[in-house]
Amino acid sequence: MPSRAASEYRYEKLTWPEINDAVEQGKVCVVPCGSVEQHGPHLPLDVDIVCPQGIAFGVGRALANKILVLPPVWYGYTGHVMDFPGTINTHFETFMRQVLDITKSLAYHGFKKIVLLNGHGSNMPNLDLVARRTNLETDAECVLAAWWNFLMVDKTFMPKWRQSKFPGGCAHACELETSLYLYLDGDNVRKDQIKNGDISFNNDDSPFSWVDLYGAGPATVISWTSSYSETGVLGEPELATAEKGKQVYDEAVKQLVRFVSWWKDRPKDRRRDRHRKPPTMPIPWGQEPV
Amino acid sequence: MPSRAASEYRYEKLTWPEINDAVEQGKVCVVPCGSVEQHGPHLPLDVDIVCPQGIAFGVGRALANKILVLPPVWYGYTGHVMDFPGTINTHFETFMRQVLDITKSLAYHGFKKIVLLNGHGSNMPNLDLVARRTNLETDAECVLAAWWNFLMVDKTFMPKWRQSKFPGGCAHACELETSLYLYLDGDNVRKDQIKNGDISFNNDDSPFSWVDLYGAGPATVISWTSSYSETGVLGEPELATAEKGKQVYDEAVKQLVRFVSWWKDRPKDRRRDRHRKPPTMPIPWGQEPV
Amino acid sequence: MPSRAASEYRYEKLTWPEINDAVEQGKVCVVPCGSVEQHGPHLPLDVDIVCPQGIAFGVGRALANKILVLPPVWYGYTGHVMDFPGTINTHFETFMRQVLDITKSLAYHGFKKIVLLNGHGSNMPNLDLVARRTNLETDAECVLAAWWNFLMVDKTFMPKWRQSKFPGGCAHACELETSLYLYLDGDNVRKDQIKNGDISFNNDDSPFSWVDLYGAGPATVISWTSSYSETGVLGEPELATAEKGKQVYDEAVKQLVRFVSWWKDRPKDRRRDRHRKPPTMPIPWGQEPV
Amino acid sequence: MPSRAASEYRYEKLTWPEINDAVEQGKVCVVPCGSVEQHGPHLPLDVDIVCPQGIAFGVGRALANKILVLPPVWYGYTGHVMDFPGTINTHFETFMRQVLDITKSLAYHGFKKIVLLNGHGSNMPNLDLVARRTNLETDAECVLAAWWNFLMVDKTFMPKWRQSKFPGGCAHACELETSLYLYLDGDNVRKDQIKNGDISFNNDDSPFSWVDLYGAGPATVISWTSSYSETGVLGEPELATAEKGKQVYDEAVKQLVRFVSWWKDRPKDRRRDRHRKPPTMPIPWGQEPV
Amino acid sequence: MPSRAASEYRYEKLTWPEINDAVEQGKVCVVPCGSVEQHGPHLPLDVDIVCPQGIAFGVGRALANKILVLPPVWYGYTGHVMDFPGTINTHFETFMRQVLDITKSLAYHGFKKIVLLNGHGSNMPNLDLVARRTNLETDAECVLAAWWNFLMVDKTFMPKWRQSKFPGGCAHACELETSLYLYLDGDNVRKDQIKNGDISFNNDDSPFSWVDLYGAGPATVISWTSSYSETGVLGEPELATAEKGKQVYDEAVKQLVRFVSWWKDRPKDRRRDRHRKPPTMPIPWGQEPV
Amino acid sequence: MPSRAASEYRYEKLTWPEINDAVEQGKVCVVPCGSVEQHGPHLPLDVDIVCPQGIAFGVGRALANKILVLPPVWYGYTGHVMDFPGTINTHFETFMRQVLDITKSLAYHGFKKIVLLNGHGSNMPNLDLVARRTNLETDAECVLAAWWNFLMVDKTFMPKWRQSKFPGGCAHACELETSLYLYLDGDNVRKDQIKNGDISFNNDDSPFSWVDLYGAGPATVISWTSSYSETGVLGEPELATAEKGKQVYDEAVKQLVRFVSWWKDRPKDRRRDRHRKPPTMPIPWGQEPV
Repeated sequence: MPSRAASEYRYEKLTWPEINDAVEQGKVCVVPCGSVEQHGPHLPLDVDIVCPQGIAFGVGRALANKILVLPPVWYGYTGHVMDFPGTINTHFETFMRQVLDITKSLAYHGFKKIVLLNGHGSNMPNLDLVARRTNLETDAECVLAAWWNFLMVDKTFMPKWRQSKFPGGCAHACELETSLYLYLDGDNVRKDQIKNGDISFNNDDSPFSWVDLYGAGPATVISWTSSYSETGVLGEPELATAEKGKQVYDEAVKQLVRFVSWWKDRPKDRRRDRHRKPPTMPIPWGQEPV
Repeated sequence: MPSRAASEYRYEKLTWPEINDAVEQGKVCVVPCGSVEQHGPHLPLDVDIVCPQGIAFGVGRALANKILVLPPVWYGYTGHVMDFPGTINTHFETFMRQVLDITKSLAYHGFKKIVLLNGHGSNMPNLDLVARRTNLETDAECVLAAWWNFLMVDKTFMPKWRQSKFPGGCAHACELETSLYLYLDGDNVRKDQIKNGDISFNNDDSPFSWVDLYGAGPATVISWTSSYSETGVLGEPELATAEKGKQVYDEAVKQLVRFVSWWKDRPKDRRRDRHRKPPTMPIPWGQEPV
Repeated sequence: MPSRAASEYRYEKLTWPEINDAVEQGKVCVVPCGSVEQHGPHLPLDVDIVCPQGIAFGVGRALANKILVLPPVWYGYTGHVMDFPGTINTHFETFMRQVLDITKSLAYHGFKKIVLLNGHGSNMPNLDLVARRTNLETDAECVLAAWWNFLMVDKTFMPKWRQSKFPGGCAHACELETSLYLYLDGDNVRKDQIKNGDISFNNDDSPFSWVDLYGAGPATVISWTSSYSETGVLGEPELATAEKGKQVYDEAVKQLVRFVSWWKDRPKDRRRDRHRKPPTMPIPWGQEPV
Repeated sequence: MPSRAASEYRYEKLTWPEINDAVEQGKVCVVPCGSVEQHGPHLPLDVDIVCPQGIAFGVGRALANKILVLPPVWYGYTGHVMDFPGTINTHFETFMRQVLDITKSLAYHGFKKIVLLNGHGSNMPNLDLVARRTNLETDAECVLAAWWNFLMVDKTFMPKWRQSKFPGGCAHACELETSLYLYLDGDNVRKDQIKNGDISFNNDDSPFSWVDLYGAGPATVISWTSSYSETGVLGEPELATAEKGKQVYDEAVKQLVRFVSWWKDRPKDRRRDRHRKPPTMPIPWGQEPV
Repeated sequence: MPSRAASEYRYEKLTWPEINDAVEQGKVCVVPCGSVEQHGPHLPLDVDIVCPQGIAFGVGRALANKILVLPPVWYGYTGHVMDFPGTINTHFETFMRQVLDITKSLAYHGFKKIVLLNGHGSNMPNLDLVARRTNLETDAECVLAAWWNFLMVDKTFMPKWRQSKFPGGCAHACELETSLYLYLDGDNVRKDQIKNGDISFNNDDSPFSWVDLYGAGPATVISWTSSYSETGVLGEPELATAEKGKQVYDEAVKQLVRFVSWWKDRPKDRRRDRHRKPPTMPIPWGQEPV
Repeated sequence: MPSRAASEYRYEKLTWPEINDAVEQGKVCVVPCGSVEQHGPHLPLDVDIVCPQGIAFGVGRALANKILVLPPVWYGYTGHVMDFPGTINTHFETFMRQVLDITKSLAYHGFKKIVLLNGHGSNMPNLDLVARRTNLETDAECVLAAWWNFLMVDKTFMPKWRQSKFPGGCAHACELETSLYLYLDGDNVRKDQIKNGDISFNNDDSPFSWVDLYGAGPATVISWTSSYSETGVLGEPELATAEKGKQVYDEAVKQLVRFVSWWKDRPKDRRRDRHRKPPTMPIPWGQEPV
């Protein structure tokens, strides 16, 4: 039986000898990261995994010989949502260390390009720091990307696609997430429960404090979800359709395919030590020597 | 649309209002725990998740109104296997904290019976400690169970089933794991690569130092897998069949169904404070007051 | 001697009885956060403190009866800059815990509105998490704000002000930072050393990977500064002037004054517990009970 | 005065030059680990140290030129026993790090064979992890052994010796521990207080949930001792005698002597790196390079 | 058999019901803390335990109804001595947490007066912090005391007793420690190896940098022992005698008896909250509410 | 413009190329460490920074070509003072790690002599441990010095200068601190509020338990300030004058100048490995290899 390294994009379905092959092929590793948390009365708890994993699998199908999709990091940082039943929080230090252990393991085995493909807003600062540490403490390159940001690459996409108000129509269990989930797993949407929901502080119309998936005020307090949302819906899911979900899916996959294809073989930038005399001790914090 | 709380056993497919229903129903939460790690040239990296999750789903189908199966804890403690490509390790402190955050979240929402259903040997001490801390730091009850130990409840099962030598025939990527994987996901077994493998120190025939899934010598060094295994196979997968996998699956599901049914409504045992004068300060380490 | 609580804006210059007065006055606490790190051959190592502290003091002078400016958090997260001499890094876990201890101390004493006014880009994810934890673990409200984002409130300001290219002209030791520093402490600018500097990966013209103080590509690797900068200058300081620095200062102070004035007396939003049965154990991770 | 390295088995009674001798002699280090915790009304708090240390000293007398017994690790992991006065708990992370620092110090000085000889059940998962980390993070070999497991090497010993019921007769302050303590320090046994005690959940006769020093059900909840024991006695100390304690002592010493003699000069197994291309970065988590 | 609580001073020799008695008697707990580390060619590795434990036992014999001596904390903080074989270091964070867990356990059970009786110089800052945290995080009182400092209470003792030079004659394995060890366990002193040893930097005669058990310069670098000592002896053990050891022992016991007798029933000082409005949230860091 | 490395003593006012110059010049780094905490009704919260920084700047002016003064570590360890408003505490583990990151950064860049100049009593044990770890984990030398201890170098200074009682007159917000603050920043002293304050337990006249900046009893409990002080003043500030502050300042600067001048070029002492066979693994805890 020949190696499946070039044709299989699910990391966990390879054997260890095939991982050696995949390393040789320079495959890019994509790690879907999300959260198990409330998404209103109409969406299941797994939205933040279903979306990035669905897109990652789309890229996998398109580019099986170039990428591997890792098993998802299911449990994210979401302590501010604990007033809603079902939400499962990971302390942020634990979460960061967990993902860092994954990227370090991959880097050690020889995978030198890693994408953290995130589906949960409150993971962004955490994963930003994990990607940085991976870059400083291994010889691999790691990048954080939220799937929804790939919709901004083609400047014409969102203006055409989005019908909900800005800011506030696309935030959580919203026009965007609901559309994509309808496309990826429509049977699990409670369609009769779909109802728009306000971010109450957005209604202050303060230029300082407002939030949306595509922007935030310069001084926005991020606190308990239950203090600014009645139902856990932040946005306008009533504008969502499966067809719009397909458009989002196709666009995100297309751009991620472009990105991976470009990045895969781009040589890593080289450090230059600016010390006149080379350091006489190892760099602290487990960082890589220059 | 009626609540799916009683009919859906996949935790992540419920909505937050349905979690309130599930709590009211006293559902038992089952958390499959495993590892992404080498399992020889014939099995994929996901054996330790596929097995316990497969069994948990079997229990879910049989007992949908009594249990919820959580998304799996994919990434386990497996630093000693890092010489084999593909293995992804989580530092054990991080791993324990990660799982503890899950059990604490569940307990906070009102789930008071939690099973850690483990599929990875080296997770056992870690999860034992997590289950203990859950019991000491929350008001829920948490139990650790390795899926293979349910095969020991009926004393007649294993003697009939097992054909490989003891000790050593059932350890890793072995007669047992290969059989179950053949049954659960046979297409992903590289059947032409199945080949028995030795645990080299078992060959010392020391009464002190030997290992098997079903026992270990009283003074067995647990060190780098690559130092006692050539291929990553520890045991006799050549004796495995899908049919034997089905027997294992059926037996494990049957016993776990029995256990959950018994445990679900068993009242929690009550503590008795043995201090003559009640403590005048909170108990340290975040443990629950008596 | 009367209490200086209403007239003094420097926190550290009050006495403890005056702090009781300041709490009663509901003063907003502003904590300047920055970093000691290289800013090219023309700027000293303290740019990231001088800028936010300078602005905070401006607000202090304008609004002495409403705010207190704390001593700055000098040492930030900047491990990726260690190839440049003089940079002092704090491990990010330590940095976050350090700032969290400050906000918790303030909250304990009765200050319920806290602004983290940041001057160092790589502190953003860290401080975002600190502000969140403050909101979850105390009864105070804490907000993170980068000083340069206040220049975006008036949509007409930056288009008028900025002369450098986007992206890349305003990033680090750039048109913006150099202008403000020229205004605040011009004598310490080595004016004969001012020279523009490239972010080398910006030159790839990839729609995925680019960076500026006012935006970033959706998949931008954040790695060693010395790998994409020759001199530590990222941007176009040759376009900087003290006069432009004054404009920036005035605008930032004006907007921050507006923000503090609005936020100071805004009542905190109220949580709603969505559990049908109230939790029977404390919420984990030291978070506040609902 | 000649070196005492070969004749003294108490590590702490050597001088530093004699430690160099002991390293040269390849002595095996034995670290007795236990706990200060309740053992019913008839036994003192130090049972879990007195037993393994007593046995270790027996081995020391028999094999003074081959082993060194370290000062005991008195304070173990026993948070679940805190409802009983006198019990002293160490948080498990602290406990593991404490013992790991001992094994690492020994390994650094040149001792390459280390036995953690444990006398406290709830230390087992902790010490298992410590032994593993020692094996992964140093070049020494470390093995965990509970003293009671050496009684299982000779299959004929326990069936002859044990009179109490299985499961439950030998668990804690039981037939076994009381016998050995009577032999080692009989004066400190409150003989008039000896009284059998139940593990209340054992009385459920569940095939899933039961416990004994020599086995446990596949799904046994490990929770507060005071919730399943009235007096802190788990087992049948009324069957204990000093004579039976002597038999246990002799057998344990004999087997440990055999083990140490065999293991002392056994060469360490050699790792084989399975990466096709050697790793280009250090292995993470402080593990040893291959 | 009557309770031994009043007559036994060894904590670990009580049973749990007797601990209840001891708590009722308000017994003071003494925890000997030390280190396993080199003490030159003439003293064994256990000096830092033998000395404080010997003194504590002396107090126990004199005052059995008022104190309990805990099992010693054998393993201290001594990383700077690792160039000498046999030294066993505990990372200082681990060491502090270990001792804190002991004091917290004691406080929880009802012991409200705790003495950390230290025998190892480099434990002083660590234990100082542990004693402080115990005072802040429990309702007990904890005090750190080095045994040698009790010799300073009677101002006439040391001038009469000491023959070695100041500074430097009494530092480590010196006139003082050797005398006391000769008295407590003379057989284990290698008398033919006793030889004075220099602290080389003391020979600089700098007023800033020098060290002795009874003082230190205001700016003394504390670094690797092996960099300022040839043999590990810091001081003048040639001046030591068993008789002088007895004098030291008697004096230390006498003063400690006085201290314990005075402190045992001294009421704890009461806190006064200086906040005009009482805090509205718990005090952070696990500290006790006012 | 020539390099300012030799003429500027404020570290943060240099550019990165100038830091290379300063390293070449072998400049000594001085890090003022303190705390933001209550100092009675007459002194502001910043006494513990103003004092050591003021002295350090004095040394800087005198010796600009030999030292660099770092930005201060404002936030210290002061949990026991939290009953007084305004005090800001840093958990001691965080505090130690924070300062250690500073010293490690400096050492990495090539500064091999570092002084922690402390102004806050409760930082002493913490900083002692930080200085030690710097010495063990880098190739630099680090020394802790409290500014008030430099007044003890000239044995004739304090007897002449001090008018307040011993012990107790100089402890906190006392004769000494008030004098120096009057000299350094007299306008911020509330002169009408100056009033002596007792350390209530000093009044016990116990030879075991008393405290002063210049000594402490051998068994002094260090607990909540508010439990032994009414106003936060510990000592006799009524004896303070600006003139006495100038004397203190001059003396401290003079002695620190002497110390830095002596220490700057003193070669580091060399370690000697006492292992007969060189260690075969790295020294643990991140310590430097011998």
